[in-house]
Amino acid sequence: MESINIGIAGLGTVGAEVVKQLQINANYLNKKAGAKLNLAAISARNKSNDRGFDASNLIWIEGAENLAVQKEVDLVVELIGGADGTALNLCKSALKKGKSIVTANKAMMSKHGYDLALLAEENQCSIGFEASVAGCIPIIKSLRDGLSATKINSISGILNGTCNYILTEMRETGRSFDDVLKEAQSKGYAEADPTFDVDGIDAAQKLTLLTAIAFGISPNDKNLNISGIRDVDVIDILFAEELGYRIKLLAASKFDGDGLVQEVSPCMISLDKQISKVEGVLNAVELNTQLAGSVMLTGFGAGAEPTATAVLSDIITVAQGKAPNSFGCSARDLIANIKEGKQDKHRFYIRFNVIDKSGVLANITEIFRKYGLSIESLLQRGRNPNEEVPVVITTHETGNVTLMSVMNELNASKELLNKPVCMKII
Amino acid sequence: MESINIGIAGLGTVGAEVVKQLQINANYLNKKAGAKLNLAAISARNKSNDRGFDASNLIWIEGAENLAVQKEVDLVVELIGGADGTALNLCKSALKKGKSIVTANKAMMSKHGYDLALLAEENQCSIGFEASVAGCIPIIKSLRDGLSATKINSISGILNGTCNYILTEMRETGRSFDDVLKEAQSKGYAEADPTFDVDGIDAAQKLTLLTAIAFGISPNDKNLNISGIRDVDVIDILFAEELGYRIKLLAASKFDGDGLVQEVSPCMISLDKQISKVEGVLNAVELNTQLAGSVMLTGFGAGAEPTATAVLSDIITVAQGKAPNSFGCSARDLIANIKEGKQDKHRFYIRFNVIDKSGVLANITEIFRKYGLSIESLLQRGRNPNEEVPVVITTHETGNVTLMSVMNELNASKELLNKPVCMKII
Repeated sequence: MESINIGIAGLGTVGAEVVKQLQINANYLNKKAGAKLNLAAISARNKSNDRGFDASNLIWIEGAENLAVQKEVDLVVELIGGADGTALNLCKSALKKGKSIVTANKAMMSKHGYDLALLAEENQCSIGFEASVAGCIPIIKSLRDGLSATKINSISGILNGTCNYILTEMRETGRSFDDVLKEAQSKGYAEADPTFDVDGIDAAQKLTLLTAIAFGISPNDKNLNISGIRDVDVIDILFAEELGYRIKLLAASKFDGDGLVQEVSPCMISLDKQISKVEGVLNAVELNTQLAGSVMLTGFGAGAEPTATAVLSDIITVAQGKAPNSFGCSARDLIANIKEGKQDKHRFYIRFNVIDKSGVLANITEIFRKYGLSIESLLQRGRNPNEEVPVVITTHETGNVTLMSVMNELNASKELLNKPVCMKII
Repeated sequence: MESINIGIAGLGTVGAEVVKQLQINANYLNKKAGAKLNLAAISARNKSNDRGFDASNLIWIEGAENLAVQKEVDLVVELIGGADGTALNLCKSALKKGKSIVTANKAMMSKHGYDLALLAEENQCSIGFEASVAGCIPIIKSLRDGLSATKINSISGILNGTCNYILTEMRETGRSFDDVLKEAQSKGYAEADPTFDVDGIDAAQKLTLLTAIAFGISPNDKNLNISGIRDVDVIDILFAEELGYRIKLLAASKFDGDGLVQEVSPCMISLDKQISKVEGVLNAVELNTQLAGSVMLTGFGAGAEPTATAVLSDIITVAQGKAPNSFGCSARDLIANIKEGKQDKHRFYIRFNVIDKSGVLANITEIFRKYGLSIESLLQRGRNPNEEVPVVITTHETGNVTLMSVMNELNASKELLNKPVCMKII
């Protein structure tokens, strides 16, 4: 049986789990790989940390970048993180030496994926980055291999488990965003600085990678509209339930062969749709395909073990001698300059607060009439006259230009007591 | 760009669709394959049929078995069907010549998969059979590659779209099995002879293939218990809804490293579980994994285009020069003689009809008491005394031995007006 010598850089929870699995499940993994997976060297910032595995027989390399040049390392596993710096230097250096890399680094892949893919191709090695999107869900391999034969029309994904957990908790308990976020932080489901997750940046980076493979374009975040979940109010979650929807942070993209639309935003998803039922820390990706209809994959999008599973599956692929194209076709064939596509028409949910007094609704609905935006339903629960009440409007299908005109005028209206909330209905 | 020369045997709806896609989407497919997919030869029973594509430039081979020996054919696509006969001869002959095969033939693969996998390995070529299970859902590749690094605890699948369509229609319209089956036949969703589908044989063959890859054992149907959906009554579907369940034909297997349990049977699935919501002709497979939690894939399990998509993705894999192990590890490592595993304990749904008169329930519940089978709920809707009424019992968790004792005694009881219905609750 051949051997493949693995060097791992970065020994946080995922890295430590990969080491542990290589130690305790060696027979199983070797059988799958058809090769001996030999953990040759490790590197991290601090040698002395206890990471829950026996490191006494492992070669420790000071300075992760040095892993790439070790002659006893055939394959570099990069679990350091960060779009640039050490992670990028290590990966470039490994690929230049013809050593394949396996990484969970969505920030690096979404920013430098094209250059890295070219490097891999020139040096006849490969990049496995299954772990960088949706944890253990084999979505990258499914796009690259399983569904390689059909054009993809569009992608919709729940790609951030932290956001999905927060939205699920808010709905189930009626608690506020801030309250649930604090709890998620104390449970370890959210980072101390939650920006990356709750503002949609993490989901956006993952989306660019799926978009790249699905549509054969160079990963890019140009014109990618991102809005996170900070402004989602419990009241909207409750109205959503009442109207037959569920609010999810949706990462969606669509390419018609000409223009690309990429967007991360909280959406109202009809309860008829299976993706609306994906709850808690689960992730899901739905692919709308040209030949195979809709295909959906669901599973854990984060956590040490699910993510390590994805890393290890990529290691097995390399050990089997397969060198897949990073983005599903030759990097030289990836479309580089893509123009912004036209948004589809959608129905929208709009909510704002007004004083419950005569004439207010007439003034507001006049704004909709003025721009020809047709109201599908309007919900106002009167309490006592002259009190503040929420008004919920759902619209018929409309394009972005009309919607923006109405939203701008609503924003300026003296009748509104708050900034109106607006979400796509899916 | 290299070329790969493809020979296709069998030009039914799937075969014709594969030919069409190779013709109209050649650029796209070649780009994915990194090779020119050249349709070199075709063969079918009847040359003169109009199959909706231009065959004038294609080499026609009389006798599908002759495809394997054509020097201009590098890769054989077998879409003839049938466990033995022409399909098997063709595949064996191709593999012996070192030519990879791609097939949608679940009957052949479940019966001869082990021998074929050995042949492929000896001759350094491969077998793609993604299309044989769950249409376009990339479940074989996901088990073989995407989730290769985690042990699988169990598989649950909705693997037969015809049955799922019939059960969905029965629930939505309240019509009988026979009635819905007739309609399904007229719409082309069910075969003129529906045995293969509705009696669970199709789902069972697919299950043996997933079981083989998931657990690294030679595909086998020994001790595989199969019951189909012919006996599912609308009344049970309605009771299921009332109790918070949905009836699905579930193909399930479980291997604990020692004993294997494989079963195809209609089950009551809790509406909390996502797989209960998979409706109509959709298929789904849920994998319970050791490291990555539960992973579920959903999509179209049949139809010319979804199935052709799976066939074409396998063609691309071969063209890329990848030769995956058929069942996820070397055929020589597949466990051959597996013993029957022990069934898990389950809750059960039992329904039968009795005459609504005093003492009947006492006699029946006495049977449960006798064997220590604890009743969780009992539902009897009285109409008029001395009329026939259905009784529905759900049990607490119990093993198969206790259940069988109770069922045998119920069967023999004079109080029961029909053969009692019994389904697992999942």
